[in-house]
Amino acid sequence: MKAARYHGRRDLRVDDVERPQIEDGKALIEIEWCGICGSDLHEYLVGPRVIPTQENPHVLTGAVLPVTMGHEFCGRVSQVTANSKLQVGQPVMVDPRVFCSACPACDNGDTNICLQWGFLGYHSEDGGGYSEYVAVKEELCHVLPDSMPLSEAALIEPLTVARHALRKSGFDDYRDKNILILGGGPVGLAVIFVLKASGVGKLIVSEPTAKRQEQTTEFVDVVLNPKDVKVGDRCRDLTGGKGVDIVFDCAGIMPGLMDGMDALQRGGTYVNVAGWETECIIPMSHFMLKEIIFRASMSYTERDFKQTVDEYAAGKFKGFEKLVTARIALDDVVEKGFEELVNHKDEHVKIMVTPKKELLISR
Amino acid sequence: MKAARYHGRRDLRVDDVERPQIEDGKALIEIEWCGICGSDLHEYLVGPRVIPTQENPHVLTGAVLPVTMGHEFCGRVSQVTANSKLQVGQPVMVDPRVFCSACPACDNGDTNICLQWGFLGYHSEDGGGYSEYVAVKEELCHVLPDSMPLSEAALIEPLTVARHALRKSGFDDYRDKNILILGGGPVGLAVIFVLKASGVGKLIVSEPTAKRQEQTTEFVDVVLNPKDVKVGDRCRDLTGGKGVDIVFDCAGIMPGLMDGMDALQRGGTYVNVAGWETECIIPMSHFMLKEIIFRASMSYTERDFKQTVDEYAAGKFKGFEKLVTARIALDDVVEKGFEELVNHKDEHVKIMVTPKKELLISR
Repeated sequence: MKAARYHGRRDLRVDDVERPQIEDGKALIEIEWCGICGSDLHEYLVGPRVIPTQENPHVLTGAVLPVTMGHEFCGRVSQVTANSKLQVGQPVMVDPRVFCSACPACDNGDTNICLQWGFLGYHSEDGGGYSEYVAVKEELCHVLPDSMPLSEAALIEPLTVARHALRKSGFDDYRDKNILILGGGPVGLAVIFVLKASGVGKLIVSEPTAKRQEQTTEFVDVVLNPKDVKVGDRCRDLTGGKGVDIVFDCAGIMPGLMDGMDALQRGGTYVNVAGWETECIIPMSHFMLKEIIFRASMSYTERDFKQTVDEYAAGKFKGFEKLVTARIALDDVVEKGFEELVNHKDEHVKIMVTPKKELLISR
Repeated sequence: MKAARYHGRRDLRVDDVERPQIEDGKALIEIEWCGICGSDLHEYLVGPRVIPTQENPHVLTGAVLPVTMGHEFCGRVSQVTANSKLQVGQPVMVDPRVFCSACPACDNGDTNICLQWGFLGYHSEDGGGYSEYVAVKEELCHVLPDSMPLSEAALIEPLTVARHALRKSGFDDYRDKNILILGGGPVGLAVIFVLKASGVGKLIVSEPTAKRQEQTTEFVDVVLNPKDVKVGDRCRDLTGGKGVDIVFDCAGIMPGLMDGMDALQRGGTYVNVAGWETECIIPMSHFMLKEIIFRASMSYTERDFKQTVDEYAAGKFKGFEKLVTARIALDDVVEKGFEELVNHKDEHVKIMVTPKKELLISR
């Protein structure tokens, strides 16, 4: 079968590989759609950082590059083992995480911060989302209602990241909260949609690129261009002088952090959802003089995943599918996917990849 | 009267100045003891940073250097205005803070993060603790029981810093908590004493200097020398492999931050109490992969001050007075105080200064 494998920096190849075999407790999934994640692009450009090399195989799976990439994927059950609860043909969204189920974190239900964490698409020889088939632990397959288009279901993954970020914010109710979101990319948009599904006060987004500003505008109260305005000042203007209650950092860059800490009111909460490529230097004047709480949100748990699948099925994220800016065939994943994002990042939010060309034609 | 005034970097002079005048609502306090704070030393060595200059007078008080330093002080009421609730001769510990009582922070009781915050001893022309007299707002004078020696009472100030840090940690009960304290200086020791007064699980201190290790040992379970051992590993050894629940950073240096983040268990809380002279760079691998909560604790409020005075009077901090390593006269504050700390910092924890030489002789 075809699979887009990471061989090294800027070296992603659509290879012919063997279809993964399933053992007890796993199902074979025939993939329909897989989203390209910002982390994938990052690994493509500056990796291998997350993907294990020959010198450092993944501690749990033993995987080393080349590995099949892609972790935001859905498809249909193609093959199961005896006593499976799944049925062939069922549509499923896959929780792509790898965790040990044995460490103190996993014991506590915090599988998102398992000491041996990983993802299908980075750390496993069971395959990844940019391919035709992948072997997945049964309990990580979330069966979808037939009414949910698989062309959208892969979007559940970034929404789940956002769901976890809300859980880690320390707040239960956002209805009277003024919130600044740094970055209007897929994760920033996902945070917006999950907040709106939960009920939220004022939503302000800081996003420098035109395409993302345009895509975000209809869903929030105000979109700020941090290149043009002083984000902290504007946030105070928009909140009666107070500043925002919560910042969700979905950008992971220092100018954003400075803006976010400035925009926060006294005692405000800053939730970091982003991966950082540079150093994260705390602006002590804001942090101390406002007694800010700085929190980390990492990946998601089963609970987050299940809740998000249920909410998506219940129609709570209508409109989120608009963030898909292109749909392409697996054969074109390098040129029309990764390189397109490298060269025209500002024109895209989410690119979806399918190994089944007929799905492109039928759209 | 005599007053030690800051004229500039490493330029502290015992000047002859006029005794401050009191207006309605203020009392004149005859000072007995004032502690030298690490922040004072920092300002002496690398300031003016906190003390306002001619170009930038304090926004609330209008003060500019030279200002009388010293903010950890106690004394006796010397003069009051009509209708005062204080009586001449009463022993008092002074809450040395300056705040506006009018901003949103003050309105909310968060006078510690008043937008126009300051301290007697840095930001006021009413005097400071390294002098004979100081004018203080009545409501900031905490009357002490006659049984409490004024020679100890000035230690209430660092204990109040610690009391606030506990309030900002997000925890109410420390009895089953394993805690790492970075830095065994006055604030680190104050955190230890306030924790012990509240009831605490295991207390571990990381402190590199011999004198402070020695002074800390009798009050905690384990003292680690971060130059000799890997603090994170030792903390895990001491906590059944888990790591500590809370870190109180009373050091404010990068090696300490790295140790503290390493030593924390998953979901642990890091409370920054320290002032930072260098950049504070968050180690993202620990912060994100353990979903650490990073909190700021700034100064203290009336509530913290009153509680600490009451607890001190109730004998809850017995032994804390041992951290006084020298007592000196105001005339000697530069040579035997500041310069002594510069040249022999490792031999001292707290130096107490008095303008009343007879108090030195009577000891």
